[in-house]
Amino acid sequence: MSAATTSGPQALTLDGTVQLAGGGSLVGVEVAYETFGTLDAAAGNAVLVCHALSGDAHVASGPGPDGVERPGWWDGMVGPGCAIDTGRYFVICANVLGGCSGTTGPAALDPATGSPWGLRFPLVTVEDMVDVQARLLDALGVTRMLAVVGGSMGGMQALAWAARYPERTDAIIAAATTARLGAQAIAFNEVGRAAILADPAFEGGDYAADSQPADGLAIARMVGHITYLSQEGMREKFGRRLRHRDEHAFEFVTEFEVESYLAYQGRRFVERFDANTYLYMTKAMDYFDWQPPYDVRLPRCLVLSFTSDWLFTTHQAREIVRTLLERGADVSFAEIDSPYGHDAFLLETECQGALIGGFLDRAYAERAVCDTGGPR
Amino acid sequence: MSAATTSGPQALTLDGTVQLAGGGSLVGVEVAYETFGTLDAAAGNAVLVCHALSGDAHVASGPGPDGVERPGWWDGMVGPGCAIDTGRYFVICANVLGGCSGTTGPAALDPATGSPWGLRFPLVTVEDMVDVQARLLDALGVTRMLAVVGGSMGGMQALAWAARYPERTDAIIAAATTARLGAQAIAFNEVGRAAILADPAFEGGDYAADSQPADGLAIARMVGHITYLSQEGMREKFGRRLRHRDEHAFEFVTEFEVESYLAYQGRRFVERFDANTYLYMTKAMDYFDWQPPYDVRLPRCLVLSFTSDWLFTTHQAREIVRTLLERGADVSFAEIDSPYGHDAFLLETECQGALIGGFLDRAYAERAVCDTGGPR
Repeated sequence: MSAATTSGPQALTLDGTVQLAGGGSLVGVEVAYETFGTLDAAAGNAVLVCHALSGDAHVASGPGPDGVERPGWWDGMVGPGCAIDTGRYFVICANVLGGCSGTTGPAALDPATGSPWGLRFPLVTVEDMVDVQARLLDALGVTRMLAVVGGSMGGMQALAWAARYPERTDAIIAAATTARLGAQAIAFNEVGRAAILADPAFEGGDYAADSQPADGLAIARMVGHITYLSQEGMREKFGRRLRHRDEHAFEFVTEFEVESYLAYQGRRFVERFDANTYLYMTKAMDYFDWQPPYDVRLPRCLVLSFTSDWLFTTHQAREIVRTLLERGADVSFAEIDSPYGHDAFLLETECQGALIGGFLDRAYAERAVCDTGGPR
Repeated sequence: MSAATTSGPQALTLDGTVQLAGGGSLVGVEVAYETFGTLDAAAGNAVLVCHALSGDAHVASGPGPDGVERPGWWDGMVGPGCAIDTGRYFVICANVLGGCSGTTGPAALDPATGSPWGLRFPLVTVEDMVDVQARLLDALGVTRMLAVVGGSMGGMQALAWAARYPERTDAIIAAATTARLGAQAIAFNEVGRAAILADPAFEGGDYAADSQPADGLAIARMVGHITYLSQEGMREKFGRRLRHRDEHAFEFVTEFEVESYLAYQGRRFVERFDANTYLYMTKAMDYFDWQPPYDVRLPRCLVLSFTSDWLFTTHQAREIVRTLLERGADVSFAEIDSPYGHDAFLLETECQGALIGGFLDRAYAERAVCDTGGPR
């Protein structure tokens, strides 16, 4: 792929008002997005990729805000020759509403006060995120997509697209996701929120951009990371190995490799993510409770789960499949064998890529036939 | 059981020095304990019950420090007519070394300074806890026990007894426990410790008794509680039910029942437990790595696991069994079907009680035969 087919960071300010599921509304919503590849003349090759809790618009390698090339969060899945082939498809990825990577969220300025929203920012839902994406696609001239693709919270967005705008996409692909969180997943989210809210640096959400509630956010991320890995995967990766020592210290210091790993992940996260956004994203996930309509033709669906994902399990993926079948949708489902737990949707590019690539190619081929008036 | 057979809260100060696995030592260690039932003339009916992370010496109903009867943490398992029948057995339970319910721990006064130890208290191991229990039994005139029984960290103590003092007990019973924590369990412990250490009220461990790092300790307990329940159990108990409302609040308030439950558990824990002790107990568990000797006759063992316990799994219980078999021990093992996760050892009194009761009764019968010179 030549650099020319990558848009780099883009921003769009939506006209008018965005109505929110919680009853509030937002004006002047800014959306940060990137595109990869070229929209074909019939505008029939657009693929929207939706990111997960901590992701952003930079789904694949390309220039960052400084013009310097940097890796994308789904490299290996999205790019020239990849399953989501940017040589063939026009890939769009936008930072979600409530996010902290360019799209309007709690760190944005409240036009009514001129100060950052903080916790006065309205709570947003996955459906609100999807509504904003639809407005972005309008602006880009994409009335109907080939597919919406996402994992984890990104998969929830794909499901929300199917329920909310079934006429605007031929297909959806939902990986490592669920129609609704169970009590355990809500509990883990609540622990993370409690850690952020308890941090005195949180200041009721009105902390300065350069003085985050770092301890609380790091603890939230540590909890998250445990749920993203599998018990077996952690055992294989870390076991009981000690870091830089042969014997126990008998002090309260970082001793086990797994402690060091979590501490590092926590620190790194604080450098790139916003504590308020963490609160909003986890709440949006907790609220998500997907009930697609019966009376519409749903897009074709591919649902993927991973054997060792205990955050959003294969059992929960099968619930999605059953719901779709009950509504007469064309559904494919695969459970991918992986030791990587929930993170597998980010890591298992080979097997997942083959399944997504094949599914997308077929959707593209059949769409082309349909567009030329041939049989579907 | 008449009140007369219950000792009520007792305290013993150990003579001399307790040497610790980490190299340090303690003088004047105080041990808080309770006994239930009567030691028989041959001193052959003693059963030591070991408590888990947050337990204490009050294993069964009996008078508290104020003389008022209060429930025990293992009522239903320990008492007259129970599996661990206080009408037949002399049951001893002591608060562990490093604890906060009467036995010397970080809240005790350092004799060298006259101030509370805080984090200057030496780190203790499960083996250190067992050594202190052995000293207590010496003082009580119990040279050899019928059994040592415990669940979770209490099960680790039972295992440590088998390895360290195999000649001092006929049997051990280890429920819902493991020979060593895996990376995931260490990770959860580390998150709890991080939450306590990050709380500004922690003051490096030198907080006043009445101003605990309540937020940090509560968060640690919340994380713990998630690991004590099973995913299915939480789904059944809480599901996605909201508390006192029919619709989402679209505010950062406690909405889901599971959030309310965790918050309550966190608050309640702060009222009865000490943050420093939480650090010491979790570290003792992290350090535990059980390697029993090959060259001794080990006590008879009963190992129990619970199907939905994902903190200390059946797989880990089988590792204990294999280790014991490799050393020629007489081992019985059962996996108990339960939806209650790790907490099952506290709740499944019926099935667990029948197994433990039968095992104890047989050990008692065979011990009696042995004592009278009959065949073993």
